[in-house]
Amino acid sequence: MKSMALIVQKYGGTSVGNTDRIKNVARRVAEYRKRGDQVVVVVSAMSGVTDGLIKLAKDIVPLPSEREMDMLLATGEQQTIALTAIALHAIDQPAVSMTGAQAGIVTDGVHTKAKIHNITPKQVHDALDAGNVVIVAGFQGETKDGQITTLGRGGSDLTAIALAAALKADLCQIYTDVDGVYTADPRLVPNATKLTEISYDEMLELASLGAKVMQSRSVEFAKKFGVVFEVRSSLNDNPGTIVKEETKSMEGVVVRGVSLDKNQAKVTLVAVPDKPGVAARIFKAIGDATVNVDMIVQNISHGSGSPATDLSFTVDKPDLLKAQKVIEGLKSEIGYKEVLTDGNIGKLSIVGIGMKSHAGVAGKLFETLANEGVNIGMISTSEIKISVTIDLAKGEQAIKAVHKAFIG
Amino acid sequence: MKSMALIVQKYGGTSVGNTDRIKNVARRVAEYRKRGDQVVVVVSAMSGVTDGLIKLAKDIVPLPSEREMDMLLATGEQQTIALTAIALHAIDQPAVSMTGAQAGIVTDGVHTKAKIHNITPKQVHDALDAGNVVIVAGFQGETKDGQITTLGRGGSDLTAIALAAALKADLCQIYTDVDGVYTADPRLVPNATKLTEISYDEMLELASLGAKVMQSRSVEFAKKFGVVFEVRSSLNDNPGTIVKEETKSMEGVVVRGVSLDKNQAKVTLVAVPDKPGVAARIFKAIGDATVNVDMIVQNISHGSGSPATDLSFTVDKPDLLKAQKVIEGLKSEIGYKEVLTDGNIGKLSIVGIGMKSHAGVAGKLFETLANEGVNIGMISTSEIKISVTIDLAKGEQAIKAVHKAFIG
Repeated sequence: MKSMALIVQKYGGTSVGNTDRIKNVARRVAEYRKRGDQVVVVVSAMSGVTDGLIKLAKDIVPLPSEREMDMLLATGEQQTIALTAIALHAIDQPAVSMTGAQAGIVTDGVHTKAKIHNITPKQVHDALDAGNVVIVAGFQGETKDGQITTLGRGGSDLTAIALAAALKADLCQIYTDVDGVYTADPRLVPNATKLTEISYDEMLELASLGAKVMQSRSVEFAKKFGVVFEVRSSLNDNPGTIVKEETKSMEGVVVRGVSLDKNQAKVTLVAVPDKPGVAARIFKAIGDATVNVDMIVQNISHGSGSPATDLSFTVDKPDLLKAQKVIEGLKSEIGYKEVLTDGNIGKLSIVGIGMKSHAGVAGKLFETLANEGVNIGMISTSEIKISVTIDLAKGEQAIKAVHKAFIG
Repeated sequence: MKSMALIVQKYGGTSVGNTDRIKNVARRVAEYRKRGDQVVVVVSAMSGVTDGLIKLAKDIVPLPSEREMDMLLATGEQQTIALTAIALHAIDQPAVSMTGAQAGIVTDGVHTKAKIHNITPKQVHDALDAGNVVIVAGFQGETKDGQITTLGRGGSDLTAIALAAALKADLCQIYTDVDGVYTADPRLVPNATKLTEISYDEMLELASLGAKVMQSRSVEFAKKFGVVFEVRSSLNDNPGTIVKEETKSMEGVVVRGVSLDKNQAKVTLVAVPDKPGVAARIFKAIGDATVNVDMIVQNISHGSGSPATDLSFTVDKPDLLKAQKVIEGLKSEIGYKEVLTDGNIGKLSIVGIGMKSHAGVAGKLFETLANEGVNIGMISTSEIKISVTIDLAKGEQAIKAVHKAFIG
């Protein structure tokens, strides 16, 4: 006899986008329940609902109060939990909905991007023990003082993973509109394959590289609390990708995935005086302009005279002009020679925990690109990742070649 | 110097039906606040929102769980409070929104029609003392166990009046889409005039007669706790109608208002055996079918043989067939002779606390109707009201004549 498991399932906004889809979710949940498992379901707002509410608020004023935005947006998930419970009742599955507060999710008071403080899921346990499926509103919590908060982007994934940790769940399933995590974006690399498993660190690198299955924050939380989770599709019954702590067997695979980020642009300051505090000044100013910087590379300048370096960094392409303006505003203060920008770059990355113990990975990457006639711009490496910037026009040719060389 | 007052204002769904109207509400609220008054605002869901949510739930299943309907519908008011607070911030008026639970509204656990148990508005007081306008979600509360409940039809009015009582407010204003309470429906009687004041009892009779400014329940609550309130329009600055305990001066007016309810239908049981328990059996069965009965009249039957009576009652017109079916189902059990129905009746009523001390009011009413050639069906009276059923086709002619005879 199979023993009873406790499963946390999370469904995103598309999976609950209308009443038919909510009924589908209910059918899937009820199947798990009928096998004897206890099920906790975390849902997002129906797709479009949150954006509609944001539009209403911004119709009134461009920068609405964050406390009131939390009060407003928390209603989206509250609607979905009620509708999902109703859909479960309609197929004779006892179910009870809970707001984040009712599920015991206590956060700090930083509205619109609150952090989970602790979870005391007594009501969840009681309702499960009474035979219910419990449906919890994702993305939200409550402060100790009873103020409604939201967790920011990717918040529903975080709710699911944090609940899985607090409930000591046997499994956490993140249902989304993709089948799992692939060795590369199948639209770019047709023979990319779905990964059976991936480590937290690899998933984190892929998330930060633009493989937007999940926000890094949720993966980091899962890693911290050792929550094993599965990314899978709500549209079919295919097994997904299991994300977990690395194991010995994982190291046999040198490169787990390959990605191409087409949304990067490069800024280069030529001949920056090589003295303490200059880099800090530059990136403080960039940060103050709310521009996110990704890669940063600094080389000794080939110029003569006083010591100077060339400093390059990448930003999201839409932020390129803003970044350029910030840098130009610093010219007299810092005294660099000139600023160059390039909006036609792509960032190609390979990720894999096996790299740590395999020499020659970088060499093989560079050789593969050279054979394709692809010139390398910036290079940046971590223990489990190598990223290079390349000419955007050669991006798709390059990722196909690199996928073939490392994965097949 | 004018002393500071505490005012509770309630705005219905039409008054907050879009962001422009919410901005108008904010402007009005801020004006009161700037005069130095403390203001608590109670709002309904934006018009259409509640119906949209009900439709979603009924798309899933015709009879959704009442607990989950409360979870779902409570979001409508929660959205309005956040948007109203945002609109007040936009004109530099500090404001804070509160759900029913946060405002301390504790109810029993009867979902979709919960009764208010008590209100402990500590958070409301604190926020007012800090200079805020406080915006409270109407129609909702929370049980002692933290379950979200709603108060049923007219619930937002009830929230406002109950909060006014708990806060010992100086004034409670119910903003709606009519100017106040009129001596008759101006669409039927063009020279009907707005009343400056009206007693709770008169308002109750008019509400139950279909002058649908407010649900009886809220007026009863106001009467019980002595909350003086004003019914007025959110579309202009005209003073409305003050509803309060009767005063000596009120008795000078014999008839306060005249109403015509076109939505009634009549059922008559001919020759019902005149023995104990028969009426109870009939109206228990009607009640079990969730049909509301309004007037009940019983006369001695003119038939011969064993004692029997004719029994007539009125129901809402859409319930006529249902009521008829119930009665027909009782025929063998009760043994009446036949059942007659009439869907073409109107109920004309005159209301006024002055009637108590003025003889001849009924006579004047019947004479007025006779002069118009209007035949009277059933007659029912209370201390402050006389109602008669008449031919629906003569309804408008009759109400004009009666208004002219008693009011002008």
